[in-house]
Amino acid sequence: MPTLAAGVPEVLTRHLPAIEVSLRAAITSENSELVSAARYVMGWEDASGASTRNEGKRIRPALCLFGAEAVGGSATDAMPGAVAVELIHNFSLVHDEVQDRDAERHHRPTAWRIFGEGQAINLGDYLYSRAFAALLGGQGKADRQIAAFNVLNRAVSRMIAGQWEDIAFETRDDVTVEEYLAMSAGKTGALLGAPLEMGALLAGGNAETAATLGRWGAEVGLAFQAWDDYLGTWGDSDETGKSTTNDIARKKKTLPVVYGLAHPAAARVIRGAYTLPALGEREIEAVASTLREIGADELCRRAASQHAEAADALLASLTLPADVREHFRAVGGYFYQRGA
Amino acid sequence: MPTLAAGVPEVLTRHLPAIEVSLRAAITSENSELVSAARYVMGWEDASGASTRNEGKRIRPALCLFGAEAVGGSATDAMPGAVAVELIHNFSLVHDEVQDRDAERHHRPTAWRIFGEGQAINLGDYLYSRAFAALLGGQGKADRQIAAFNVLNRAVSRMIAGQWEDIAFETRDDVTVEEYLAMSAGKTGALLGAPLEMGALLAGGNAETAATLGRWGAEVGLAFQAWDDYLGTWGDSDETGKSTTNDIARKKKTLPVVYGLAHPAAARVIRGAYTLPALGEREIEAVASTLREIGADELCRRAASQHAEAADALLASLTLPADVREHFRAVGGYFYQRGA
Repeated sequence: MPTLAAGVPEVLTRHLPAIEVSLRAAITSENSELVSAARYVMGWEDASGASTRNEGKRIRPALCLFGAEAVGGSATDAMPGAVAVELIHNFSLVHDEVQDRDAERHHRPTAWRIFGEGQAINLGDYLYSRAFAALLGGQGKADRQIAAFNVLNRAVSRMIAGQWEDIAFETRDDVTVEEYLAMSAGKTGALLGAPLEMGALLAGGNAETAATLGRWGAEVGLAFQAWDDYLGTWGDSDETGKSTTNDIARKKKTLPVVYGLAHPAAARVIRGAYTLPALGEREIEAVASTLREIGADELCRRAASQHAEAADALLASLTLPADVREHFRAVGGYFYQRGA
Repeated sequence: MPTLAAGVPEVLTRHLPAIEVSLRAAITSENSELVSAARYVMGWEDASGASTRNEGKRIRPALCLFGAEAVGGSATDAMPGAVAVELIHNFSLVHDEVQDRDAERHHRPTAWRIFGEGQAINLGDYLYSRAFAALLGGQGKADRQIAAFNVLNRAVSRMIAGQWEDIAFETRDDVTVEEYLAMSAGKTGALLGAPLEMGALLAGGNAETAATLGRWGAEVGLAFQAWDDYLGTWGDSDETGKSTTNDIARKKKTLPVVYGLAHPAAARVIRGAYTLPALGEREIEAVASTLREIGADELCRRAASQHAEAADALLASLTLPADVREHFRAVGGYFYQRGA
């Protein structure tokens, strides 16, 4: 898997080598099973401990450094925030995988399958503690560090609350579209807005501009999420670059499905399909077309464009150099169409 | 269950009402299932959400405030640290209970049994994030906050590494006494030393004195642990105040058992007993007397007194008012004989 994913704007790839060096420094060099497990999760080791490269796109740390540069500051000043947000992201993935019993991430066995569930809980906790050590344990201005910490920790709290809701929704049949969107904003949006705001704060940007950048990131994240829910049901694999396994086949409760469950006729079709041991092409197609009939596709597209417009309005409210504004457009365009 | 446990020195009980008020303020008043679950874990609600009082001794936050007073500072300045360390302690308990499949804590069902394993993982993560929000999210001097954060986060990292080792030891038969003591220092000692050091730092004490207080707390914690391992095997229930269920009956790998496994004859007796579905009085007695024959009881007592002496030497190295020194003696005496 290549480190530099195709289609990612240059502003989000230019610091990847430096990010990787700093991430490696944040996981202590101590030779223990726990540290080795952390290296596996970060994509630097395979399950046998041999060196490998499976790092993923590191979008969140790249956004943090971009936040610093967007306010005319230095990416170096924001590196502790970049490292922290990527370690937090990985902590949340490791715990989510235990909770959801996910078998694979990026075509590799998930941590709990290799180290056991109990150790995967420890591993997530360890990455969490290393994240804050990276943010607050080094040199830097104490007031900026604390401001960035508060942004990140609020995002983490929202992310955890979103994950709680997500699990709670599994046993509920009456989740409203509003509840679903609030959960999704916490679970996915919070950790996309936070890095931009942290980067701006760590680089000495003013708090108001930093907060606007954070809101921009969150809106872009929500636009992405709504669009991703659309593509997960109706996108074809050529267009999405994803495998043909769609959200309906995986019985996921996405925005269109939640919307459908509130419509009695569509709900009957969904429930009928989701209680089957496995869905065939015919059932998947029946659910997708039923959802289209009640306008669930339109709902997703509308949600995506509303968030994209909100993001554009936030950007328009800021005084920015032309090249920085262009970078924001490129990053926004990337999110509207692809995944993070 | 009374809030003020019998035998706890006055210096560790005087601020309990204020600690409880601050802990409650640290868990947001937001009305959600997640927050309600946190209130259950903290002992303020029962499983139905009704108000109750099951708070435990709050030893760690009390140590933090004592650390502030010991350097002539104000307990109020150290309250964010007190709240943080208690929330961290509870986060670690909630995750440990999932890992160890513990059914009860303080005679109540553990969190995972009520909310499910996945949500218990979220709940621990939530308490973790509230802990650092309490420490760094409020007013206070930024440099002192960061110094206290670094002490706590280092302790958390050590605690997590200790928990990793503890789980790894379950499947190993060749754990050395040194490995066991290192695990125990991380898992139990780290979070007893840290609050004293944090309290001293938050109240403006100098870093060297604060570090010495932290080392004193860690030594006292290790003395307690060794003594607890002794009592768990050879103490009678009148003496310990614990139930008659001892560590051998529960097949725990304590210091004497780890020591015994390194002696072939004792190892045979232990393995024979620990492979039984349940141990009767006769098997428990056989293991206990075999361990006594090879001097495992003496090993525990020696470890306990060595740590107690190390703690005394640290205390002697500090210039302290007579009343403060007396308080340290009372706290030390409490730990050498009871649990935390």
